[in-house]
Amino acid sequence: MSNQNNQILKNTNAQILDEFNASIMFDKELYSQDIKGSIAHSQMLCEQGILTKEEQEVIESGLLQVKDEIESGKFEFSLAYEDIHMAVENRLTEIIGEPGKRLHTARSRNDQVATDFRLYVQEKSLSIKEQLKQLVDTFVNVASKHTDTLIPGMTHLQHAQPLNFGYHMLAYANMFKRDFQRFESSYERNNYSPLGSAALAGTPHNINRQSTSDKLGFTAPSAHAMDTVSDRDFALEILFNISTSMMHVSRISEELVTWSSYEFQFVRMSDEYATTSSIMPQKKNPDVPELLRGKTGRVYGNLISLFTVMKGLPLAYNKDTQEDKEGVFDSVRTIEISLKILNEVIKTMIVNVDKMENACKIGHLSATDLADFLVQKQNMPFRTAYYITKDVVEKANSLNKDISELTVEEIRESNDEIKNIDEEIVMYLDLRNSMNARTSIGGTSTKQTENQIEDFKTWLEKN
Amino acid sequence: MSNQNNQILKNTNAQILDEFNASIMFDKELYSQDIKGSIAHSQMLCEQGILTKEEQEVIESGLLQVKDEIESGKFEFSLAYEDIHMAVENRLTEIIGEPGKRLHTARSRNDQVATDFRLYVQEKSLSIKEQLKQLVDTFVNVASKHTDTLIPGMTHLQHAQPLNFGYHMLAYANMFKRDFQRFESSYERNNYSPLGSAALAGTPHNINRQSTSDKLGFTAPSAHAMDTVSDRDFALEILFNISTSMMHVSRISEELVTWSSYEFQFVRMSDEYATTSSIMPQKKNPDVPELLRGKTGRVYGNLISLFTVMKGLPLAYNKDTQEDKEGVFDSVRTIEISLKILNEVIKTMIVNVDKMENACKIGHLSATDLADFLVQKQNMPFRTAYYITKDVVEKANSLNKDISELTVEEIRESNDEIKNIDEEIVMYLDLRNSMNARTSIGGTSTKQTENQIEDFKTWLEKN
Amino acid sequence: MSNQNNQILKNTNAQILDEFNASIMFDKELYSQDIKGSIAHSQMLCEQGILTKEEQEVIESGLLQVKDEIESGKFEFSLAYEDIHMAVENRLTEIIGEPGKRLHTARSRNDQVATDFRLYVQEKSLSIKEQLKQLVDTFVNVASKHTDTLIPGMTHLQHAQPLNFGYHMLAYANMFKRDFQRFESSYERNNYSPLGSAALAGTPHNINRQSTSDKLGFTAPSAHAMDTVSDRDFALEILFNISTSMMHVSRISEELVTWSSYEFQFVRMSDEYATTSSIMPQKKNPDVPELLRGKTGRVYGNLISLFTVMKGLPLAYNKDTQEDKEGVFDSVRTIEISLKILNEVIKTMIVNVDKMENACKIGHLSATDLADFLVQKQNMPFRTAYYITKDVVEKANSLNKDISELTVEEIRESNDEIKNIDEEIVMYLDLRNSMNARTSIGGTSTKQTENQIEDFKTWLEKN
Amino acid sequence: MSNQNNQILKNTNAQILDEFNASIMFDKELYSQDIKGSIAHSQMLCEQGILTKEEQEVIESGLLQVKDEIESGKFEFSLAYEDIHMAVENRLTEIIGEPGKRLHTARSRNDQVATDFRLYVQEKSLSIKEQLKQLVDTFVNVASKHTDTLIPGMTHLQHAQPLNFGYHMLAYANMFKRDFQRFESSYERNNYSPLGSAALAGTPHNINRQSTSDKLGFTAPSAHAMDTVSDRDFALEILFNISTSMMHVSRISEELVTWSSYEFQFVRMSDEYATTSSIMPQKKNPDVPELLRGKTGRVYGNLISLFTVMKGLPLAYNKDTQEDKEGVFDSVRTIEISLKILNEVIKTMIVNVDKMENACKIGHLSATDLADFLVQKQNMPFRTAYYITKDVVEKANSLNKDISELTVEEIRESNDEIKNIDEEIVMYLDLRNSMNARTSIGGTSTKQTENQIEDFKTWLEKN
Repeated sequence: MSNQNNQILKNTNAQILDEFNASIMFDKELYSQDIKGSIAHSQMLCEQGILTKEEQEVIESGLLQVKDEIESGKFEFSLAYEDIHMAVENRLTEIIGEPGKRLHTARSRNDQVATDFRLYVQEKSLSIKEQLKQLVDTFVNVASKHTDTLIPGMTHLQHAQPLNFGYHMLAYANMFKRDFQRFESSYERNNYSPLGSAALAGTPHNINRQSTSDKLGFTAPSAHAMDTVSDRDFALEILFNISTSMMHVSRISEELVTWSSYEFQFVRMSDEYATTSSIMPQKKNPDVPELLRGKTGRVYGNLISLFTVMKGLPLAYNKDTQEDKEGVFDSVRTIEISLKILNEVIKTMIVNVDKMENACKIGHLSATDLADFLVQKQNMPFRTAYYITKDVVEKANSLNKDISELTVEEIRESNDEIKNIDEEIVMYLDLRNSMNARTSIGGTSTKQTENQIEDFKTWLEKN
Repeated sequence: MSNQNNQILKNTNAQILDEFNASIMFDKELYSQDIKGSIAHSQMLCEQGILTKEEQEVIESGLLQVKDEIESGKFEFSLAYEDIHMAVENRLTEIIGEPGKRLHTARSRNDQVATDFRLYVQEKSLSIKEQLKQLVDTFVNVASKHTDTLIPGMTHLQHAQPLNFGYHMLAYANMFKRDFQRFESSYERNNYSPLGSAALAGTPHNINRQSTSDKLGFTAPSAHAMDTVSDRDFALEILFNISTSMMHVSRISEELVTWSSYEFQFVRMSDEYATTSSIMPQKKNPDVPELLRGKTGRVYGNLISLFTVMKGLPLAYNKDTQEDKEGVFDSVRTIEISLKILNEVIKTMIVNVDKMENACKIGHLSATDLADFLVQKQNMPFRTAYYITKDVVEKANSLNKDISELTVEEIRESNDEIKNIDEEIVMYLDLRNSMNARTSIGGTSTKQTENQIEDFKTWLEKN
Repeated sequence: MSNQNNQILKNTNAQILDEFNASIMFDKELYSQDIKGSIAHSQMLCEQGILTKEEQEVIESGLLQVKDEIESGKFEFSLAYEDIHMAVENRLTEIIGEPGKRLHTARSRNDQVATDFRLYVQEKSLSIKEQLKQLVDTFVNVASKHTDTLIPGMTHLQHAQPLNFGYHMLAYANMFKRDFQRFESSYERNNYSPLGSAALAGTPHNINRQSTSDKLGFTAPSAHAMDTVSDRDFALEILFNISTSMMHVSRISEELVTWSSYEFQFVRMSDEYATTSSIMPQKKNPDVPELLRGKTGRVYGNLISLFTVMKGLPLAYNKDTQEDKEGVFDSVRTIEISLKILNEVIKTMIVNVDKMENACKIGHLSATDLADFLVQKQNMPFRTAYYITKDVVEKANSLNKDISELTVEEIRESNDEIKNIDEEIVMYLDLRNSMNARTSIGGTSTKQTENQIEDFKTWLEKN
Repeated sequence: MSNQNNQILKNTNAQILDEFNASIMFDKELYSQDIKGSIAHSQMLCEQGILTKEEQEVIESGLLQVKDEIESGKFEFSLAYEDIHMAVENRLTEIIGEPGKRLHTARSRNDQVATDFRLYVQEKSLSIKEQLKQLVDTFVNVASKHTDTLIPGMTHLQHAQPLNFGYHMLAYANMFKRDFQRFESSYERNNYSPLGSAALAGTPHNINRQSTSDKLGFTAPSAHAMDTVSDRDFALEILFNISTSMMHVSRISEELVTWSSYEFQFVRMSDEYATTSSIMPQKKNPDVPELLRGKTGRVYGNLISLFTVMKGLPLAYNKDTQEDKEGVFDSVRTIEISLKILNEVIKTMIVNVDKMENACKIGHLSATDLADFLVQKQNMPFRTAYYITKDVVEKANSLNKDISELTVEEIRESNDEIKNIDEEIVMYLDLRNSMNARTSIGGTSTKQTENQIEDFKTWLEKN
């Protein structure tokens, strides 16, 4: 490796300028979209009588050869070609000669750039969507094994009410389902073909934009050439969708890190997804969820980068826009690997049911059930019920028990007003009963959780 | 005005803490949503037999009275109530006594917060959508008056090809139409009722979430209580939609500022929307588009703020989330006033047709038409055509003319290979003809522009 | 309260435009700086013979009266005056008549804006610096009480090595000390007087910029008028300094939230700084540190906002720059109240020494000490030592003990190679000894910690 | 090239995980810092008697061989080594055997990471500072050639007052000088050696941190190990400094783009720094300043990325922090190449003096001079002077002249009150005289500009 930075300062001005201007070193990522777009364009030119059948065929097979060369690593990318479009076209002309030069008829680099990048974003939107679906499936599977496993539901990282762990997992299934829907929606909204926009205002050539649009899988040609060559809304949308999804990834990661601590021990990362210390043989670190959490930073950054680039740009094309791609590529790579990894982490994590259930016995998680009982069954005003609950909690504390562990006698002794309370109260304070009492739509009861799992299964089948 | 900042340092700790914790001073913005949600909740409780008809009626009329008091300015907001929910409920109880306290049955502050804020975002999504439609309409109207007005189409702020000004305006109509669609889509995706989620896990009370969802105009109850109380995707979506839209606003603003310069003089802000200098009587400043452009900063900032808040938050509710509202309120206010103002600016701007058309005569904008002519009609290789074009351009420069102003003789003299060129070339080099030659879908020809205007009119009628 | 947003849509265009353009509703925050600047300007004009002594005196006392009116709440701010500069000047002229109009001689609104805002940022830099010093002092005080209190030092939220809690507190003292230094440095770098820059290029009047610079406490007049009226580096610097400082606040807040959980119980917020639940009488929520953590979002957002505004602005003044103030005011208010609150939180938190020390017995925190012992005293290769340590850890696990609790016999039994290990090993595995062994500069031993406390005390005295 | 993204989805889980966790593919950038740090550490260990002289010598020469191998491209980086620290150490041990393993005594990967990255940031701060100085020098040189070249000074992109172009250039010299000072200041503030911090709490080994600090060019060892391994303030500072500097780059770039337009034609990029169109032979595009302007986006993004990563991280080391480097490397590369390129662009740009001076004749730039004259010389109230100025402007407009072109008779005819105005008024309205009248400190007069140039030359010599 040469030291790239010092290099920059040593190069001649001309070299530096090439390096500065060229996009080939990152937009080569678009080689397959570029070739796909060129084949569609050549086929359309042939349909319109602008290319002969022979010309088109030699162009298409030449382009496929270029693709092979790239994929087999034979192709050498060089700054001389400036961008992927010129690199492909130059190589094509080397291979097939004269007809290669005719491919560019009725097309400009501006609409080629717009088309390739749009195709990339659309393809990636579909594959990320697929990954999100798999992740939802994984959360639903884990959930279905734990609809009766108690875990303390927290607000403010403080025990609040007992949940089942399957229900907690479903919260994430819901988040990633919404992410799926956002990719679906942005895909539809942006599925318009830029090809044929030309430099900025369309072309006098007799082209057929509907034809190339169809061949490339777009819904229709875009409506306005000048808007199209300067539009980067589709790129902002994928950056936003990825940011939101990584934010969700950061939340489950935070929980996994906390749950993996000695203090919680609710879950343990499988050995594959925890790293050991080279100094401390006893230590297992949740590196993987930490890194997942950290990767939120770069995708937020990429979003703000493109927003900055686009701010205040006059129409139509400006070179600033060349800065649109690297951030998108980076965010796409980040979400792809992150979803893949998170999926495995969730699949393989070891759930410590005992620790979760024992934790529920700290914090008097059924206190609201007691108050509810007093209001509903004893017809007490809420305020009175609240103070009685406080007394019961204090009684439990004095006995070093959780209120779910109190006998009916102990409950009766804690306050005069409930000295005759029905013994069914013990049942109400039971933690599992407390969880199962929450039967409203979207509630945590095992029954509700199972319903939600069924709904997810139906959704997964349909999508 | 007291100096708020010094004040902070002088107050007692308790006062400061109240000020720090309380949200009332900004979430009062949600008063109407809070009251709407409470009315729906009380009606549902009545349907379910939890409130009597009398209780419900007194609650509803009490709530309407609170609303009146707020809207007429009689209501005094105080830090003592901490948030809008408590402020409304306390006042309600002052007015109607005991039944006021029963309103909170089977509800928690967490789902109230979630419901009010969701309602706000949904209502604003609809009204912003409406404003965007009006703005599209305005651009279409201006466009329809200028489908034959030439303007130099630019790339890199350099003259490239002649457009019609109507076509340029339609580029913005397309941007704001996409913005409309984004608000439409996020509205649909997030239109689920949080009410009934309770603290984090649902409630044991016999509530009917479908009923409150219907009353509040939601599609259905949300699917998962814990996800719902911690979900802020809907807020991120409106912040993103606003950012994208303000980015578009910044682009037209940049163009208006540039076009208003002495050097361009393409447009002039109407006197109402330009400010004069208190020192320089001759000066008119495009303050309004500049400020529109500058306001992009704050909406980008609000987006990154909420993304930062949400990063790595464990489930379910954490107080951090209280920081979600001010940024959304600010972005909503910003886009509302900005769209309103931009709409007027565009409606009232004075278009300097002569300046635009004269500018087209600088830069040999029909040079590509000459090359195209030589390739298509004279069957020349493009490379030859390119060099001949260069010679014609040089000839024109030597005559201090634009190529669109050359006579056929002057053209013929510029290069031997075209010494017999058909005189129809003069027609091809004509700027208006050049513009009208671009007839591909989405192209700039007057015909195409008119088609696009028709499509917009149809869309405006339907939406 | 009227509903501000609907209001926007109902107002007449002229009203909306006033509201849009005017800055008075936020830049009134600068009233004291504006008056201070005007007094200095008038004194200088008098020195230069441009104002008479009588005129200057009536102007100065008029300005002081305006200041009184503002501070006593008598002054009514109205959109009609557009900004604080005009509001003050108009009121001055109402009070003193003709001479009020002469105050603006040899001055422009542009340099007034620049001066007032610069003064504000400089004043706030000093007061925030002072708050940071107090916070450092608080951390040092807490540290000095706990130099012998063990706490598990964590990496990856996993127990790693035993620290003393005082040492942990000093980590934050170091962060906030660096913050102090950043404010100090940006203060010095930006302490140049804009006054006298005029509109953009200086003035032909015979002013004395050195004189106003001295009167206002600046180091010197700024070097270049055009740069000065368009420079917002000083505002970006305070926004960055605040962001970095709030990032530090978010880190201690995260730790306080985690340490307050039932699972950790290392600290408890004093009752004043924890909130109770209206439903669950047993629950105490660490709302305050959560909100501190959440407030990081807004200050990051304010930084990115101003960076966005400034991107690509041509010289000299543009109206976009009016968007510079609200974000700075908001970030300043946020850091002021946050530092104040955090200071109290740290001062009043209850440290649970037993919980911290007991936690150290989980995770074999002295495992590295065992390996070190074997390498240093037994001259073993590290790899061998590592495996023996592993055996000892397993032995301890089988006995349900931490290695710090093993007897020398138990240690000897765990592996044949150490069956004769010296009994001093028990001393090495002792947790407190382990902590005290780390005596390198910056290490955690009580001795080192005390040295660091001394260094801080010296620093606090000097600054 | 294989398609990296599809690859991700096809790899085995173990490979993906390696790829996800490893930092070697980007932190190899730190190879020279890593080797430098290791050499210093080995020398210190030898001084302390922990390594023998022979061991140290073989380690040092081994490390230098590794360095050679890397710089000559022989070294193969592989995911197997995970990070640069392990890659170097493994290769060292391959070369020199046993002693290689002893290098890591009394050191941990955490302090190695912290040391290498800190060294990188410090080295880059110095080299960027140097580039900024060169850029200031370039602006000063251009300025010194144009202290008498008129250019319209603008506010709101509207002509306001006449400046000299040298003065305009000096505005940028001032910005980049401030940038220089910021790098200088952050370098000093962060120049403390992390080496010897160990994992998080120091080490029991008898090391000498002062010695390694001296050898590595640091001011002193850092004060607190735990703070040091988790501190990334130095990285945030360089990201901020780069962002501010790129913001300045974006401003001059915006001006260059505008000035290059057909409408302005104030400057022309040298042919090397403008690109031609492959279709339009007449067109020259200012691609280079556009790309410079666009690159602001990525450095803003990198700043917000690291701020996001650091938010809410508990102490001490967390894997999230691995995300700190790529953004810094990218921002450093971006500023290095951007400053280099901008420097050349400014050096080689062609200044169109005639266009600039002619532009000054549009907009009555000396109108304020007329008003000043009437106030100062004729003792008129400003308001009267303002209206008379307006009349003169109208007179000029009616004659299709700029007021600087009026004869004294024409001036006298425009308003009765000045029918006898002294003919010296013509001199005052002269544009060059107007520019030269602004003699206040920091003003635009040629004299003042020359003074400022002298000050810069002194500064450049000293720094």
